[in-house]
Amino acid sequence: MHIGKPILINGSPPGSGRFPCICTPLVGRTRELLLAEVAAVVAKQPDLLEWRVDYFQEIGNQEAVIAMAGEIRQAATGIPLLFTRRSTREGGEPTPLGEEQVVALITAVCASRTVEMVDFEMNSDTTHIARVRAASQANGIGLVLSFHNFHSTPSQEILSQRFAQAQRLGADVAKIAVMPERLEDVLCVLAATLESSQTLDIPIVSMSMGGLGSLTRLFGGAFGSAMTFAVGASISAPGQIPIEDMNTVLGILQKSMGKGR
Amino acid sequence: MHIGKPILINGSPPGSGRFPCICTPLVGRTRELLLAEVAAVVAKQPDLLEWRVDYFQEIGNQEAVIAMAGEIRQAATGIPLLFTRRSTREGGEPTPLGEEQVVALITAVCASRTVEMVDFEMNSDTTHIARVRAASQANGIGLVLSFHNFHSTPSQEILSQRFAQAQRLGADVAKIAVMPERLEDVLCVLAATLESSQTLDIPIVSMSMGGLGSLTRLFGGAFGSAMTFAVGASISAPGQIPIEDMNTVLGILQKSMGKGR
Repeated sequence: MHIGKPILINGSPPGSGRFPCICTPLVGRTRELLLAEVAAVVAKQPDLLEWRVDYFQEIGNQEAVIAMAGEIRQAATGIPLLFTRRSTREGGEPTPLGEEQVVALITAVCASRTVEMVDFEMNSDTTHIARVRAASQANGIGLVLSFHNFHSTPSQEILSQRFAQAQRLGADVAKIAVMPERLEDVLCVLAATLESSQTLDIPIVSMSMGGLGSLTRLFGGAFGSAMTFAVGASISAPGQIPIEDMNTVLGILQKSMGKGR
Repeated sequence: MHIGKPILINGSPPGSGRFPCICTPLVGRTRELLLAEVAAVVAKQPDLLEWRVDYFQEIGNQEAVIAMAGEIRQAATGIPLLFTRRSTREGGEPTPLGEEQVVALITAVCASRTVEMVDFEMNSDTTHIARVRAASQANGIGLVLSFHNFHSTPSQEILSQRFAQAQRLGADVAKIAVMPERLEDVLCVLAATLESSQTLDIPIVSMSMGGLGSLTRLFGGAFGSAMTFAVGASISAPGQIPIEDMNTVLGILQKSMGKGR
């Protein structure tokens, strides 16, 4: 029993079907590093992989990116792939691409059907969001619309508005990652998650980052967050927890909460 | 690094010194069962033991209770003992003792100095509370003033008032255990804990009970709750988690939260 809607890939929850599902980031800069990373990470059986393409040195070469996505997918042996270019504004690595080129890249990756989901930032130009939504929809690929704040945590009201904005823009999944400055901010993220997971029609994903925020990575699922990011080989955001520890805590939590009153 | 004040026994945090400390209940009905329970529980190294004397068949025999406390203490090999008679009104077992007799029993146990702390309910008659406070103080024994609601969760404001009331009545530790009806109630307990742990002078202990509430047993320490109850051999309240699982989660949490931003 859980509150919150699960993320669906071709109609089914990915991997083991657990809630929340566990997503592990890939941050290799080269083909060789990425393939080594995939091999190490797949052994730990995450439910999803997120390829953070902004770390990839060849991001400027569309064909190389698509070929790489295909190779990751093959090496991932059935684990679905989320394709993410994070902007520097929202915590990503610097790349030579302008926003037009990013939209063209995502569109091409969608057309190649080498990934199951793509991530795009909801603060992007609305025409860009519409193009990414159209390209992903045309190819049966899920769209995560995301919002990040690496400095502070907006109010519960604003967080709830962000989740709702993602749904309004046509997202299949709404994702928010924000930085707590104090423990009250962690409770704020959990409260917004609990509220929006019950009022929206799409699955939502939330996390508070950093040391304090690691609490939400471990038990945000109990409040309706459909996915949590855990480290396979290298972290992609502050506060991420090793996948082995995540598995352990989620198992204990499920056992404890399943006891009912 | 943690918020919240630690529980101190003779000036030091009990056991390993971790925050929160782990307390394991003893609920045996006879001397033989209690001694077997202590042996099983001590092997798991909780920081504190709570003897729930309302389970003890000989609770009506003051000498037998004091002798038993001494035997538990000896078997506990240095783990401090919290002596608790829980009333049926707040989730305890039925006993033949009236409130006057309970106060006399606690007073006698304090005088025997066979325990390190005693628990008394803050809803008790104020003259009874004053007598228990005087007896515990005279013998250098800590006083936990506690409040339980096994049906629902009061508002954050009322929970905060309860913590403050315990401090006003002279408690060394304020403890609240309430039943959540929904996840919002769990956040309410965490928010009240966070607030009161920063505003009061004494350590506070909080928990939300049942399956939903097990979240607070695992993560309440991060929000300032100084103690969590975990099962050694038998549970004494709904939602308690095995001590092995508690150790595992607290270890992962400490590692994760220690990372800072």
